[in-house]
Amino acid sequence: MEFRELLKTRRTIRLFKQQPVDDEALAALIDAARVASCASNKQRLRYIVVRTPELVLEVLKHTRWASLVQPARTPQPGISSPAAFIVITTTEETLSELLCADAGAAVQSIEFAATDAGLGCCWLGAIDRDAIQNLLQCGKIVYLAAVGYPDETPKSVDVSIDESCGYYLDKDGVLTVPKLRLQDILKWK
Amino acid sequence: MEFRELLKTRRTIRLFKQQPVDDEALAALIDAARVASCASNKQRLRYIVVRTPELVLEVLKHTRWASLVQPARTPQPGISSPAAFIVITTTEETLSELLCADAGAAVQSIEFAATDAGLGCCWLGAIDRDAIQNLLQCGKIVYLAAVGYPDETPKSVDVSIDESCGYYLDKDGVLTVPKLRLQDILKWK
Repeated sequence: MEFRELLKTRRTIRLFKQQPVDDEALAALIDAARVASCASNKQRLRYIVVRTPELVLEVLKHTRWASLVQPARTPQPGISSPAAFIVITTTEETLSELLCADAGAAVQSIEFAATDAGLGCCWLGAIDRDAIQNLLQCGKIVYLAAVGYPDETPKSVDVSIDESCGYYLDKDGVLTVPKLRLQDILKWK
Repeated sequence: MEFRELLKTRRTIRLFKQQPVDDEALAALIDAARVASCASNKQRLRYIVVRTPELVLEVLKHTRWASLVQPARTPQPGISSPAAFIVITTTEETLSELLCADAGAAVQSIEFAATDAGLGCCWLGAIDRDAIQNLLQCGKIVYLAAVGYPDETPKSVDVSIDESCGYYLDKDGVLTVPKLRLQDILKWK
């Protein structure tokens, strides 16, 4: 897809079709993360793709979703759960601002690649890192990204700086995400 | 440009043509940052685009570039300096891991949009935040992104996990950026 089109259409997805995603498509998402920008090119992030259905549901237990519209956008096991989790780990012992910035860049690249492939994605920071680390016997966890075929079509609306940024379900149950207008977040010098 | 093509071609650019970038093109980069993912949709980032030539050179004084290839990839004022700086600031009083993750996602979106528009971009974290904040009389600074028309063509090479990730100038003076191979950073569960 053209990047301009991706910018318009990409949205966080939290309800997924119960349809597996093949390994090749999942690997392509990690390849997008691989070439994202990172501080001093140190490449301190590593990726675990969890796609065994039982293990996906185990990881799901340790995640929290969309607090403002609970429980409508908390995926239900076997009904709206993701096909896979991308677990972003690090070779470092502790998290830091710079490492989290690297992970943010990597996730953004994953999200574009997912949308480009017809997939949906949700970046998750509200996770029980210790529990997931224990479950997967892996290194320090930075963030997760849930991945699957989208089963919702969220929309965004532009709002002014005085309005609320809280997302909500509209009268048709569509997740609606307010975004601040360009002129309200940009100054020229 | 197709996103897949962007993934292949995007590279950090540190030498720029001395050619201005019009405001519309710069605004489009902020619009790409605007719709990037952010924690709880709180949108706590704000953007200052510095493109007045004198002020760009003032900001440049407070930045450090590509420590491994000093001074070859430190832009020289009026010779290889960027046309603009995007100053990423926040409404928060202090930086945090989550805020830096948001900024990482925003910068990654800016970088793709820049490449898509024929521009080059360098994400800068080694900056004198206090000096720039003082110069611009702005809120807390998270990161900068330098922007302009590229005057170099860096390349990437895939390397295994045992090799160095340090970037270098090859025998022709081309900046060469080692990236870890996909199979070395990805595990399946």
